[in-house]
Amino acid sequence: MKKPYYAVIFTSIRVTEDQGYDEMAKTMEKLAMQQPGFLGLESAKEEIGITVSYWESLKSIAKWKEHTQHITAQIKGRKDWYNQYSVRICKVDREYHFSKG
Amino acid sequence: MKKPYYAVIFTSIRVTEDQGYDEMAKTMEKLAMQQPGFLGLESAKEEIGITVSYWESLKSIAKWKEHTQHITAQIKGRKDWYNQYSVRICKVDREYHFSKG
Repeated sequence: MKKPYYAVIFTSIRVTEDQGYDEMAKTMEKLAMQQPGFLGLESAKEEIGITVSYWESLKSIAKWKEHTQHITAQIKGRKDWYNQYSVRICKVDREYHFSKG
Repeated sequence: MKKPYYAVIFTSIRVTEDQGYDEMAKTMEKLAMQQPGFLGLESAKEEIGITVSYWESLKSIAKWKEHTQHITAQIKGRKDWYNQYSVRICKVDREYHFSKG
C-alpha cells in the first residue's frame, strides 16, 4: 500500500452469540470496501475479535465512522453485541512483507 | 495506554499445521511480555492470524525484533510456518474504548 496510510485496529469482546451480528458484520465489511479511501481489511476472531482496516487518510476514516448505516451498526453493537471494544487509529510508519517462493 | 505509543500489526498466513508452531508462538508471547517497553498484546487466528502488540517506543520494538530467541523464531517462521506475513509498525494516533455497564 502506498504510504502514508492509516490503520484502524478494532478489538472486541462479544456478549453472546449472534443476534444478527454475523450478518451485520458482513454488511459492514462490504460497505466499508465501497467507501472512498478504503485500502483493505483483515479480520480474525477467537476469544477476542480483531479487525484491522486500512485507509488512505484520516478524513476517509472519519467519513466512514459517520456513515449512516455504520452508525446504526455502532449503536446496535453497544446495545447488543459487545461487552467491550477498543478502536485505535494509527499511522503506518513502516512495513515489511514476507512471501514464500 | 499512555500516548504516544506504538502498535505492531503482524498478519500471517500459515503453511500447514503445527510443526512446533504453537509452542514457539506461546514462548514468543511470554518473552515479548518481558521486554522493556512492552505494553500489551492481542491475538486472534482464523484463516489469517492477526497479532497486535503495543509498545512504548520504536526503540523497544527494534530491540525486540533483534532479540536472539525472537530471531530464531523469525528464521523458523520463514522456513517452516508461514506462506506469507506482513509486519506494520504504526503510531497510535487516537483511541476510544467502550465498556458495558
